[in-house]
Amino acid sequence: MDPIYNYHTLLNFARSVFEKMGSTPEQARLAAEVLVRADLRGIDSHGVARLSGYVRLWEVKRVNANPAIRIVHESPSTAVVDGDGGLGLVVAPRAMEIAIEKANKCGTGWVAVKNSNHFGIAAQHAMMALDHDMIGMAMTNASPLVAPTFSVERLLGTNPICVAIPAGKQPPFVADFATTTAANGKLEILQRKSAEAPSGWIQKKNGESSLNPHELKEGGALLPLGGDRDHGSHKGFCLGAWVDIFSAVLSGANYGPWVPPFVSFLAPPTDPVGDGIGHFFGAMRVDAFRPTSDFKDHMDNWITRFRSAKNIEGQPAVVIPGDPEREFEAVRLKEGIPVNEKVVQDLKDLASKLELQLE
Amino acid sequence: MDPIYNYHTLLNFARSVFEKMGSTPEQARLAAEVLVRADLRGIDSHGVARLSGYVRLWEVKRVNANPAIRIVHESPSTAVVDGDGGLGLVVAPRAMEIAIEKANKCGTGWVAVKNSNHFGIAAQHAMMALDHDMIGMAMTNASPLVAPTFSVERLLGTNPICVAIPAGKQPPFVADFATTTAANGKLEILQRKSAEAPSGWIQKKNGESSLNPHELKEGGALLPLGGDRDHGSHKGFCLGAWVDIFSAVLSGANYGPWVPPFVSFLAPPTDPVGDGIGHFFGAMRVDAFRPTSDFKDHMDNWITRFRSAKNIEGQPAVVIPGDPEREFEAVRLKEGIPVNEKVVQDLKDLASKLELQLE
Repeated sequence: MDPIYNYHTLLNFARSVFEKMGSTPEQARLAAEVLVRADLRGIDSHGVARLSGYVRLWEVKRVNANPAIRIVHESPSTAVVDGDGGLGLVVAPRAMEIAIEKANKCGTGWVAVKNSNHFGIAAQHAMMALDHDMIGMAMTNASPLVAPTFSVERLLGTNPICVAIPAGKQPPFVADFATTTAANGKLEILQRKSAEAPSGWIQKKNGESSLNPHELKEGGALLPLGGDRDHGSHKGFCLGAWVDIFSAVLSGANYGPWVPPFVSFLAPPTDPVGDGIGHFFGAMRVDAFRPTSDFKDHMDNWITRFRSAKNIEGQPAVVIPGDPEREFEAVRLKEGIPVNEKVVQDLKDLASKLELQLE
Repeated sequence: MDPIYNYHTLLNFARSVFEKMGSTPEQARLAAEVLVRADLRGIDSHGVARLSGYVRLWEVKRVNANPAIRIVHESPSTAVVDGDGGLGLVVAPRAMEIAIEKANKCGTGWVAVKNSNHFGIAAQHAMMALDHDMIGMAMTNASPLVAPTFSVERLLGTNPICVAIPAGKQPPFVADFATTTAANGKLEILQRKSAEAPSGWIQKKNGESSLNPHELKEGGALLPLGGDRDHGSHKGFCLGAWVDIFSAVLSGANYGPWVPPFVSFLAPPTDPVGDGIGHFFGAMRVDAFRPTSDFKDHMDNWITRFRSAKNIEGQPAVVIPGDPEREFEAVRLKEGIPVNEKVVQDLKDLASKLELQLE
């Protein structure tokens, strides 16, 4: 059994870590909230498990803990934001705020971001739009671990997309997914269990199919959603490429194989094609399309109809995107967050190094 | 060997068919161009093979051949268009024009469409943006043939997405794909060959996996990209749902199981939740993000790097989205378009019924 930590314990610890790095209290609070929200929502790979990784990037001066985030280009419905090398956890919410401001004025707002770092879970940012009766979108590129269909080279990240859509009486529709068959976090779970991966998740260094969840350490690669050409991996490649181009070619960040690695022990490419990693955000005011109450009534009907779809005998019910994460959040807020023992040790080491308490 | 038809022969024939249906010469020209572009680009399932289907829908008064297309709601960067029950082949280009006009004024333009019909290939509409140095997007919902993960019910269409991105010296990046493992057209090819489908494309009426390309006639369903839960079909479901909601819940069209069928022998649902089928279009001015020449230089670099990726031994090179269709178009413009014999017979029957010549 993994030890259980209270949400606020983890939140306060993460905040104190970011403050030690030199973030302002406000930035540290925001970064901690975004980070620990991943643990709350059950995306354990993107939460406090990454905290020491952010610290190591800061130690080697690849993260600016106190960035001056600014707009460098804009039109009424668009902007490009320079994240000043800051934590994506802080840069992304600011960029999403700008998208929402633009949407308030002209219906939609679209913000591409350069010179940023990993931003936690995409859903956290896209969902900022929901309180404004807007649809929110968030995507980001990431360190190259994914081989395009037919290739042995790792050229794309797991490049997630989130689309968050408000409803009325029903909870919102929140689809947040890596554009690979499975994200890295899923491999980590298999590694801990010493279990094989399903086919179509990973390939060996030479491009042969592999079931070994440790294959990436041997030079293998994750595969685009679909797994192989017969099963539509060219579409998964399209999705990952789309995210890469919107996040980085539109903004002026690094793209494809030039995206700097998240881990500090791997050096960034010496021939960058842009600044840092890139994100892309969107906000669309629902009432820029139709009256909000009409839209919400029909979203409720959509969600209700799909949730009540007849299931395959012996299988669970249809899952409305966002339901599992929301259920995790409700339970973990009340009962606490189980943290993997190795991660606990990692946090304790961090506490000791930074002279903080994990309590 | 299938008989070969000159592009202009098919174009002129399709135009004369739409004129017989009562379209204005301008509408008929546009509809024919959009339709036959599918044949040119090698998407044979969406071209003249569907012409008699459009005619049958018109015969039962489910298509308005001379629609008054109008904006019913708008903001500076958005609009909802009522297609007046017209051919999607005509409604979609008008909606995309509106998106482009909006983008010219405020950086981006986003148009949701209701009360439309099938619009041919998504790429044709998204690519309209390219000449304006804009990124184009097009999506549409469609007749329900796809079962969500875990369900036996057909609740979504193959709901394609196209993203068209301009480059400089390189040809544009044009990703156009159904959000299922395989689209219906791929099943038709297998049916003609009497070949089995790969796993993960289709399921039986009871939800069991099937390899039979005729399974849909037995009440089976196509599967979301991924095929099954282990291989990420919940992500394919997210994609199809996203397209459905943007196309129809935002616009006021029918969604999910309420989308009217393309075939005239199946009656539309008697309890519609909106008007006709729905589409969604976007146009983003590249220079609303960064100088166009910078963007194009980096797109060229992106494309060149991915195209030259080291391939798996014995496999083809990495395919840049849009390359195969562009190559088809070049060859077929010059050498003509092979048309399946059954489709030729269908066109001849149509010619005879409408007192036209296929020559």
